[in-house]
Amino acid sequence: MASTMQTLEVSLGDRSYPIHIGQHLLSQAELILPHLKRKQVAIVSNTTVAPLYMAQLAEPLRMAGVKVIEIILPDGEAYKNTETLNLIYDALLQNRCERSTTLIALGGGVIGDMTGYAAATYLRGVPFIQIPTTLLSQVDSSVGGKTGINHPLGKNMIGAFYQPQLVLADTETLKTLPARELSAGVAEVIKYGLIRDVKFFDWLESNIVKLMALDTAVTSEAIYRSCQNKADVVAADEHETGERATLNLGHTFGHAVENAMGYGVWLHGEAVAAGTIMAADLSKRLGWLNDAEVARISKIFKAANLPIEAPKLGVDKYIDLMGLDKKVVDGKIRLVLQQGIGKSVVTSDYPAEALRQTLSL
Amino acid sequence: MASTMQTLEVSLGDRSYPIHIGQHLLSQAELILPHLKRKQVAIVSNTTVAPLYMAQLAEPLRMAGVKVIEIILPDGEAYKNTETLNLIYDALLQNRCERSTTLIALGGGVIGDMTGYAAATYLRGVPFIQIPTTLLSQVDSSVGGKTGINHPLGKNMIGAFYQPQLVLADTETLKTLPARELSAGVAEVIKYGLIRDVKFFDWLESNIVKLMALDTAVTSEAIYRSCQNKADVVAADEHETGERATLNLGHTFGHAVENAMGYGVWLHGEAVAAGTIMAADLSKRLGWLNDAEVARISKIFKAANLPIEAPKLGVDKYIDLMGLDKKVVDGKIRLVLQQGIGKSVVTSDYPAEALRQTLSL
Ligand SMILES: NC(=O)c1ccc[n+]([C@@H]2O[C@H](COP(=O)([O-])OP(=O)(O)OC[C@H]3O[C@@H](n4cnc5c(N)ncnc54)[C@H](O)[C@@H]3O)[C@@H](O)[C@H]2O)c1
Ligand SMILES: NC(=O)c1ccc[n+]([C@@H]2O[C@H](COP(=O)([O-])OP(=O)(O)OC[C@H]3O[C@@H](n4cnc5c(N)ncnc54)[C@H](O)[C@@H]3O)[C@@H](O)[C@H]2O)c1
Ligand SMILES: [Zn+2]
Ligand SMILES: [Zn+2]
Repeated sequence: MASTMQTLEVSLGDRSYPIHIGQHLLSQAELILPHLKRKQVAIVSNTTVAPLYMAQLAEPLRMAGVKVIEIILPDGEAYKNTETLNLIYDALLQNRCERSTTLIALGGGVIGDMTGYAAATYLRGVPFIQIPTTLLSQVDSSVGGKTGINHPLGKNMIGAFYQPQLVLADTETLKTLPARELSAGVAEVIKYGLIRDVKFFDWLESNIVKLMALDTAVTSEAIYRSCQNKADVVAADEHETGERATLNLGHTFGHAVENAMGYGVWLHGEAVAAGTIMAADLSKRLGWLNDAEVARISKIFKAANLPIEAPKLGVDKYIDLMGLDKKVVDGKIRLVLQQGIGKSVVTSDYPAEALRQTLSL
Repeated sequence: MASTMQTLEVSLGDRSYPIHIGQHLLSQAELILPHLKRKQVAIVSNTTVAPLYMAQLAEPLRMAGVKVIEIILPDGEAYKNTETLNLIYDALLQNRCERSTTLIALGGGVIGDMTGYAAATYLRGVPFIQIPTTLLSQVDSSVGGKTGINHPLGKNMIGAFYQPQLVLADTETLKTLPARELSAGVAEVIKYGLIRDVKFFDWLESNIVKLMALDTAVTSEAIYRSCQNKADVVAADEHETGERATLNLGHTFGHAVENAMGYGVWLHGEAVAAGTIMAADLSKRLGWLNDAEVARISKIFKAANLPIEAPKLGVDKYIDLMGLDKKVVDGKIRLVLQQGIGKSVVTSDYPAEALRQTLSL
């Protein structure tokens, strides 16, 4: 299986790590072996992903003499909790895994976040490799080091910053991804173009059809440039005060939608798409985007089969739901808005009336 | 309340922090205030310690305008688990605590370890202050950054390295400590002298009666020199491969005792004392300690009301129990032994027969 591979190095001093992006990376044990402390790994996956990809990953490792433990969790955001986390610890302890055992996450963002958190906390930290199998996890959770689980009172409330040794983004795995999940990932890809990379946005406009068809070269390039943008933002702002907040473009509106509809009814990426359209509308009211720019934004989301209209919840309901969001500073809702395509700002400096008009659409 | 205070600075680059040691520190809000990001704290304590000291700590803070949340957990090592940890998260979330809320641990090592771990993981990390109220926690867990909880399959299996902003060791709190708990803490104090600080050991010999009587100046000095020794060892060996292992003097034998008798029947420090005597006996068999030195070691433990004889479990039982210990490398039991008072080595290079003789005593 010949394959081209792109590699992005995430620079974090002695915690730097490579992200390899390409086809059929999953079964290339030689990519993984140099990163193991000892020939022992525990692969964490779920009941959906394991039947598709566990053997492809585990067998070549076993052939290379690696002892592989498989930990298969139930599938779903609802299981991203302390009980499921304990299943990982239980399996590690039952198998007497020591500090030199590497945890490998094989799955989407839910598996990645939970496995990363287990790695951060098992024996106060063991090595960790990410093999994200959704587009969203390939372009988003591969970079930034956030790991964690949900609490009944809030999403991602418990966690740790913990960096992987290595990320393998195998574009082939996306072929089995449900179409809606693929689109949801594309929403975050488009986001990077919108907030800080107009050239990437232009390129995406030309290549969106190929991306939706999972053309290999285009998919790989889209992942590479997304991770690079995220890495740049995160590096510039380790403490999440300034530019990092722009990664939340569309998210304050989007969380209100997810919340109102019940988590999981709208996928996160779908809500972000509709939310980004709302942010664009408000930006236009402030004179920061023109009609043509707004039309381009709508068009690319449509081409990705993403919703461009948020549900009509009523202005007050929106305000209420958005107020619950953690981006509120001193009672004012801080929003990520656009000042042209490829340029975003975080601001609470807009007329309340303009926001209400956007929310009443 | 006039009081003298000693301060030890633990040097860890941008994670450095002070340990203040002295009388009546608990109620000096001005020691704490400069370390708060915002005037909001959550004090975690237990049903034994809170009635004794919560008000002394909380009231002056409230007078200074700090919002104080009190989280009172059940008392005991048996509660150092994921369920109790969740009680902390629940309370923090119910009170809408944000990233600027400081967690304060008020209690012994169990409260300190759990609170530190909650601080490491709540919202991926919030600030943390230690107020250890047992001698053991003042001289041991104040330094080193280890936090965590137990798992049914092993002690301290889940955790994180996480440094506090500040440690307050208030010697007054030791006055309510049960006598056995005080002695157990003294075992670790003596340990520092034995492994690396002969002058401290000499000083302890002269001052052990005053220490047991909780003379203020002597107690403060003993805590200061203990923390300094631990800080030196930890700084020299962040990754626990070399010198840090000497902190386990007496612990491999001691864990076997704790384990065999059922956890909690022998206090940890009591088992460490008996274990240290066994290590001394083996060291003598190797010609590394003479009779007079062994006698000095026994004498100081006796003066601290600590056991100097381990239970007679039989050699094979000991070997078996010690084999379970994580300090086994390639089937040989690595032990911390003495080469004189104030000089220890970690070695698996001793005749098996000598170990069997020590274990048969
Ligand atoms: N750590 C971070 O920085 C970060 C960033 C963004 C999102 N997240 C988290 O990621 C999670 C969302 O991630 P997600 O969108 O990947 O969701 P997900 O992990 O739930 O995956 C979506 C669905 O697709 C399935 N799936 C995964 N790979 C597949 C494949 N190749 N073929 C077929 N089905 C496949 C999954 O089993 C699941 O049913 C959330 O919990 C979110 O909080 C974390
Ligand atoms: N983090 C580290 O580096 C480190 C080091 C050593 C031990 N530990 C951990 O510490 C724990 C043992 O700590 P410990 O010996 O302090 O036990 P502990 O916390 O259980 O305290 C012993 C008993 O004394 C009570 N108590 C505490 N302060 C008191 C006071 N001032 N007056 C009266 N009663 C008081 C406690 O409520 C408890 O009942 C273990 O879980 C161990 O794993 C951690
Ligand atoms: Zn998102
Ligand atoms: Zn100890």
